[in-house]
Amino acid sequence: MAIEVYWGSGSPFSWRVLLALEFKRLKYLSHELDLSKQEHKSPDMLKLNPRGRVPVLKDGEFICYESLAILTYLDRKYPKPALFGRTADEAGTVMRFICEYQVYIEEHITKIITGIYFQNQNSEKRLEELEEINRSMDAVVTEARNLDQRLARQPWLVGGVCSAADLMIFPGIKLLLRALARREAEEIRSPLLPLEENFPAIAAWLRRVEAMPGYEHTYPPHWRE
Amino acid sequence: MAIEVYWGSGSPFSWRVLLALEFKRLKYLSHELDLSKQEHKSPDMLKLNPRGRVPVLKDGEFICYESLAILTYLDRKYPKPALFGRTADEAGTVMRFICEYQVYIEEHITKIITGIYFQNQNSEKRLEELEEINRSMDAVVTEARNLDQRLARQPWLVGGVCSAADLMIFPGIKLLLRALARREAEEIRSPLLPLEENFPAIAAWLRRVEAMPGYEHTYPPHWRE
Repeated sequence: MAIEVYWGSGSPFSWRVLLALEFKRLKYLSHELDLSKQEHKSPDMLKLNPRGRVPVLKDGEFICYESLAILTYLDRKYPKPALFGRTADEAGTVMRFICEYQVYIEEHITKIITGIYFQNQNSEKRLEELEEINRSMDAVVTEARNLDQRLARQPWLVGGVCSAADLMIFPGIKLLLRALARREAEEIRSPLLPLEENFPAIAAWLRRVEAMPGYEHTYPPHWRE
Repeated sequence: MAIEVYWGSGSPFSWRVLLALEFKRLKYLSHELDLSKQEHKSPDMLKLNPRGRVPVLKDGEFICYESLAILTYLDRKYPKPALFGRTADEAGTVMRFICEYQVYIEEHITKIITGIYFQNQNSEKRLEELEEINRSMDAVVTEARNLDQRLARQPWLVGGVCSAADLMIFPGIKLLLRALARREAEEIRSPLLPLEENFPAIAAWLRRVEAMPGYEHTYPPHWRE
């Protein structure tokens, strides 16, 4: 039985799983759901994941959700090439980067993106919101500096090869850059841009991920429209 | 060279690592830091973890931080007994439970505990705070119902044996129950209590973890005072 994956265009969590499947050169049946039509909350999908979220992976009888859990499963079931390091040290460091991203970066990226797409219409509230966004931007910039320094010394985050650390972090950064490029983002101070100039090692690393075989199959379809 | 662990009493993240070390029956040098004296931010500790947080693990030359990363490392380096499942399916499900706890439960537990220990002195603000706490409590109760149902059918969260899923979730629940037992928690509605009556399977599961060999060595020392 083939691997089946249920995902949504523009969901960073879905993107991680598609990247991992391509990275491992696995064949899979792709089910793109229309998130705007709430297809991920349909009765059939709720049977697979009661939380009604994507991505969901089905491999034979086994069902898994939550992107990090799916990557963990895939790496145990299909070990090569390794997603979570080839040694215990690498495994620990890969997971450390993932945890650090989730604890110290992800919520700030979400806050900035949300503040760009959904602007409070009350002007006083919007000012408060912008202050919060700027604080989140400061946090992201501090973290970006660390990442850039690391990536200036080595092509991938851990161990000289692409790993789950790279694939877990990449989609969120792409979503952030896409949001910052919009007209609605003009009022947001963004020391990240131009990325090529201010964070050249991160820019080169993004291109490295984008050059992976199969990357094109993972690119959010609605971003091409 | 021995494993060394730097930790703080009452830090749920530290507790996870101590539980994992005992679960694997590993010998370790224990360095308890006084968090109230900011010992985790000392120059020596910042050399180990620039974020100045505990727990930190040192195993020979290898240094790791972030509790989930440390557990990942320990399981790869010292595979038996397995923390992250014995099969790919179990590994995926163990990580799914950990992710679900971190995404849907942990922040609510933190909000409730913070609201008990640090009460806003402005009475209007405190009312808002209590409303938020009650919403968090509703979320926790919904999740607790799911957990209780699962634990009524099986002794551990995944695969019939204790795993990282149990050890990652246990400390947060213990911290929550301790906070709810305080006088300051009186104004907070708590459908969790008495746990024995309302969530008997969770109560039995807590006792199961507490019966693990070595558990006593992991118990937060300042809780005994």
